[in-house]
Amino acid sequence: MPKYKCVIAYDGTDFAGYQVQPEKRTIQSEFEEVLAKMHKGEIVKVTASGRTDSGVHAKGQVIHFESPLTFPTENWVKAFSALLPSDIVVLEVDIVSADFHARFHTTGKEYRYFIARSKLQDPFQRNYAYHYPYSLDEKAMKEAISYLIGTHDFTSFCSAKTEVIDKVRTIQEMDFNETDGFMVFRFVGEGFLYNMVRILVGTLLEVGSGKIAPRDIIGILDKKDRSFAGKTAPGHGLYLWKVFYK
Amino acid sequence: MPKYKCVIAYDGTDFAGYQVQPEKRTIQSEFEEVLAKMHKGEIVKVTASGRTDSGVHAKGQVIHFESPLTFPTENWVKAFSALLPSDIVVLEVDIVSADFHARFHTTGKEYRYFIARSKLQDPFQRNYAYHYPYSLDEKAMKEAISYLIGTHDFTSFCSAKTEVIDKVRTIQEMDFNETDGFMVFRFVGEGFLYNMVRILVGTLLEVGSGKIAPRDIIGILDKKDRSFAGKTAPGHGLYLWKVFYK
Repeated sequence: MPKYKCVIAYDGTDFAGYQVQPEKRTIQSEFEEVLAKMHKGEIVKVTASGRTDSGVHAKGQVIHFESPLTFPTENWVKAFSALLPSDIVVLEVDIVSADFHARFHTTGKEYRYFIARSKLQDPFQRNYAYHYPYSLDEKAMKEAISYLIGTHDFTSFCSAKTEVIDKVRTIQEMDFNETDGFMVFRFVGEGFLYNMVRILVGTLLEVGSGKIAPRDIIGILDKKDRSFAGKTAPGHGLYLWKVFYK
Repeated sequence: MPKYKCVIAYDGTDFAGYQVQPEKRTIQSEFEEVLAKMHKGEIVKVTASGRTDSGVHAKGQVIHFESPLTFPTENWVKAFSALLPSDIVVLEVDIVSADFHARFHTTGKEYRYFIARSKLQDPFQRNYAYHYPYSLDEKAMKEAISYLIGTHDFTSFCSAKTEVIDKVRTIQEMDFNETDGFMVFRFVGEGFLYNMVRILVGTLLEVGSGKIAPRDIIGILDKKDRSFAGKTAPGHGLYLWKVFYK
């Protein structure tokens, strides 16, 4: 049975996150509902590179599924476009080998986090960027980033609810730039822990506003305790930007 | 009692239009609710330059109201920013003379209409631009515009429900350009009839797709009958861009 890999984008605003939850509108459940329609009511399970939380967006999430249907990949794109709700789009469909796995075969992920820097909140950006109009010390934030980049135990920078045991992760790239009234953070790594990007952003904002000294980051990493890092930045500024495979 | 003029912007997605309607969330009702809070429960009536329909956005709507409160205009901006929901923002507050009227004193309005031209619908644009991926004959559309610009009886280009009797209006400027995957129509005139901009856009798309010949526009104007013009383009692509006063 052919296996299909899809690159999908979604506006997370009206979803209770990616993963199926009873009584909630989720990306996975909308997707599986459409696949069931295409397969005469048969259940087709979808596997993603990972979950995204409520309000979090995706520009390049990757999923896979198996299907006995064999029409050309461009027809899959058209069928999805016709059947999916307008807040999810399938950008690309490829046939992959039977052993491909959207979650286990990722070699890395890129996340971006958008902060709106305008004095007044732009109503058109309210669901797409975190409004933070206060002044920020960019030099201090850059110094803090220098302590975070690389391989560390990120226990202090993930939700206390994180279930994985090994919390050592490698941040390969981490930076930010300001354009058109937005500060955009970029994170590239092999993998990220639960809420890790949002806690990193929240902590960097506290560094930028002088609540945390840049050098304190070293101590926060050492503590291995979530309570020492900054607040979790809101979900609606976060985008799963790209998922990498070999 | 001082009279205040405000320039406001709103994302029309979650509103049933500008004007108060029983049991519906509207821009006017949200605004008047906030003003009532500021005035210890007293009703303060708000007057806008005109209504906008359900789903229609505003970048520069103008309203006025009277209030005994006399704090500086920048404090009004801050108070509105704190109290209004995040899909409405007050950009500017000015004290105006007692005879100022947001509706009767307008000298013109600018509307813009956004059409998304990407092949697949961008989920992030679903409420902010009308997705129309089909090919368009821009030369034919420009010719059609040449027959619409100027002073005409626009009976064929307004909703059959329009209540005003004199349907002669002047379109001072009307054009479109393509940038970043959007086709943006721009309309400037002293005043527009109910649904006029959306019917003009819908008709131009039918000209662009070959369903209506450019020269047929002259006949459609002459008919003075709504049924001869094109479809009404959806509200979510439309923006009240600017309101002009002397």
